[in-house]
Amino acid sequence: MASFEHLSTRLAELGRALYDRGWAMGTSGNYSAVLSTEPLRLVITRSGVDKDGLLPGDMLVVDEAGKAVMGAGKPSAETVVHLGVVHATGAGAVLHTHSVWNTLLSEGAPEGGSVEIAGYEMLKGLRDVATHEHTEQVPVVENTQDYERMARDVEAALSAHPEAHGLLLRGHGLYTWGRDLAEAKRHVEVFEFLFEVVSRSRAAAGGHDGGG
Amino acid sequence: MASFEHLSTRLAELGRALYDRGWAMGTSGNYSAVLSTEPLRLVITRSGVDKDGLLPGDMLVVDEAGKAVMGAGKPSAETVVHLGVVHATGAGAVLHTHSVWNTLLSEGAPEGGSVEIAGYEMLKGLRDVATHEHTEQVPVVENTQDYERMARDVEAALSAHPEAHGLLLRGHGLYTWGRDLAEAKRHVEVFEFLFEVVSRSRAAAGGHDGGG
Amino acid sequence: MASFEHLSTRLAELGRALYDRGWAMGTSGNYSAVLSTEPLRLVITRSGVDKDGLLPGDMLVVDEAGKAVMGAGKPSAETVVHLGVVHATGAGAVLHTHSVWNTLLSEGAPEGGSVEIAGYEMLKGLRDVATHEHTEQVPVVENTQDYERMARDVEAALSAHPEAHGLLLRGHGLYTWGRDLAEAKRHVEVFEFLFEVVSRSRAAAGGHDGGG
Amino acid sequence: MASFEHLSTRLAELGRALYDRGWAMGTSGNYSAVLSTEPLRLVITRSGVDKDGLLPGDMLVVDEAGKAVMGAGKPSAETVVHLGVVHATGAGAVLHTHSVWNTLLSEGAPEGGSVEIAGYEMLKGLRDVATHEHTEQVPVVENTQDYERMARDVEAALSAHPEAHGLLLRGHGLYTWGRDLAEAKRHVEVFEFLFEVVSRSRAAAGGHDGGG
Repeated sequence: MASFEHLSTRLAELGRALYDRGWAMGTSGNYSAVLSTEPLRLVITRSGVDKDGLLPGDMLVVDEAGKAVMGAGKPSAETVVHLGVVHATGAGAVLHTHSVWNTLLSEGAPEGGSVEIAGYEMLKGLRDVATHEHTEQVPVVENTQDYERMARDVEAALSAHPEAHGLLLRGHGLYTWGRDLAEAKRHVEVFEFLFEVVSRSRAAAGGHDGGG
Repeated sequence: MASFEHLSTRLAELGRALYDRGWAMGTSGNYSAVLSTEPLRLVITRSGVDKDGLLPGDMLVVDEAGKAVMGAGKPSAETVVHLGVVHATGAGAVLHTHSVWNTLLSEGAPEGGSVEIAGYEMLKGLRDVATHEHTEQVPVVENTQDYERMARDVEAALSAHPEAHGLLLRGHGLYTWGRDLAEAKRHVEVFEFLFEVVSRSRAAAGGHDGGG
Repeated sequence: MASFEHLSTRLAELGRALYDRGWAMGTSGNYSAVLSTEPLRLVITRSGVDKDGLLPGDMLVVDEAGKAVMGAGKPSAETVVHLGVVHATGAGAVLHTHSVWNTLLSEGAPEGGSVEIAGYEMLKGLRDVATHEHTEQVPVVENTQDYERMARDVEAALSAHPEAHGLLLRGHGLYTWGRDLAEAKRHVEVFEFLFEVVSRSRAAAGGHDGGG
Repeated sequence: MASFEHLSTRLAELGRALYDRGWAMGTSGNYSAVLSTEPLRLVITRSGVDKDGLLPGDMLVVDEAGKAVMGAGKPSAETVVHLGVVHATGAGAVLHTHSVWNTLLSEGAPEGGSVEIAGYEMLKGLRDVATHEHTEQVPVVENTQDYERMARDVEAALSAHPEAHGLLLRGHGLYTWGRDLAEAKRHVEVFEFLFEVVSRSRAAAGGHDGGG
């Protein structure tokens, strides 16, 4: 298991890089990594922090109830969603980005639906996907300010799509994860690339068809 | 209250970052922060300076009439607009950016109208907005080279939209503000993100509908 | 008058920055500054050099016939065009960039025509333009591999548009200039910004109308 | 002939720059350079490595059968395609990038077809192209996970298009090459620029016509 020092340093570096790409403007975006599983301890960005110049000191440790057990400040309001993803998937790291393209793509999908992405080589960047002849269903979950409810909705969507590598909150962004931070980072890049490709491809085809 | 040294250093850093994002090409963009309120003293970028490589020495201090009381060079021609925003809102910092997307979005709005932005999680990056179920009205003010008139028009628009967090000058850019520089910077990022999303979303929906 | 050392250092810095913006991919782009006027000596990028990592040693000095009088390598093939611009405008610096947006915009204009840009505040970044209520005519010159002819065509276009601050070579890029490098750099940024705005604005309005 | 140390350092630098441009998200992209021709030895990125922060130690040497003869890890799965390109073209360096625009452009071409690019000055950045009045045919090869087959298909496409400077794998990216790394890098930039121009130009003209 990685140490708090290692994980908080890596999360801060990654957070600065995602900010530089324009995927976490304002104080959007929040990132976590599992520090231990028994008991569950998650290193997570604190609430309301600017991701520009993110530092290891902006991270704290929460327990499985989302209560801070180490570090200054309040944990991200979406901590419960991170915990839900860890619970549902066994992930070692969870990243939530908020890009222009993931926002646009999430808007068009029908309620309870998903965005379907198929046929692209980039899909092979997703864990255990071995061919471009793969169809990734990215569930779209309705946005809410009730984070307990959001966590339940996210867990339900993941239960309905056990093969998913990420999900979209409508008008709110991407959640993706991985066994470790390196895999979760790769998944962010794969999805953000594909979201832009799919959005531009639909626009070129003459419309915003909303996804499957 | 922060010192001149602190504010001029922070304004210069921020100005370089906004330049790097492409939001202040040429010599566009100007930035200010309140140094004291009684009497009112504003630290502001000097006129005509390239924002690439902006330095603390490019800042000067003006009084409530916009007259330079410290520093070399002429204050930004739009100093009176900054003062108008401070007067109308009590802001501690005012940022004016000039991006491709804010220019495009400002063009379509009817005279005396506003751009309406609703339903996006990113709106929560605006001060005191607690839910994505918020409708932000961004007033659009006609552009003019008569800055005294612009300042009056801006104050009138803010009086008509006391809840606004920013406004657009048609074909000229965004004015936003905050209690302090950190909040004003966050507002720039939130608005620039949303302007791109709204513009692309309208284009995908098949037209430039001009806003409400 | 600035020294060779100063101008070559500034040209190299500027060249690296324009490369980073994506405005001089491959070995496209070439940049010059006047070292002396009597006799005319121009510091200019050498031919075929990658603008990524451009160094002062990549510059040489040419005389008014375009013959290298100092430095290693061959002068840019477009040296004669730079000389034509200096001759026609009295410029102290000439910058030629090759961006996606300037390429796209140049394509739609009719032969012998120009791209018209009006109403934007950013126009005030052009020398002696004091209001957004300005109409900039950017002449579009046909591309050719006969650089002597290109230079004559450019001089003819500038003679027909003495107020122009820049011109487009069709499918080939922007030429702009200024009294000095700082002004020429500002003109590049102003034009590249406006080209993107105009292109996107036309696309949003439903077509590629080609300009006036 | 350049040394392993030199080539691995240059490949790593180049890989980091291509990552920064967004042309090799996730673990996509792979790069090689010929270390010797008799016997054929290729320096190539190892499989599955993140191109962000690519290091010389991420390179290994393969023989003409694609077997690693030096370095840690497995060679890129596409090594056989690199070898096929070297075999067909005599290239000294082969670069495979995976951008949004190359993905989009590859999608529209008919099976067995090519993307035609003509009339742009940027084409002169391709080796031995001396005029913008050049038509570049970029063959589009169907994607497959059978890399032996892909290598044969690539060699067949290059045999049918001996003048080609690059080719597209459908939904998978660009392969281009050069006598040396500098030329191959220039070709990447030229193609990525042109792919964006052609895609945007088609979109502005009102559709995704799919290429010739």
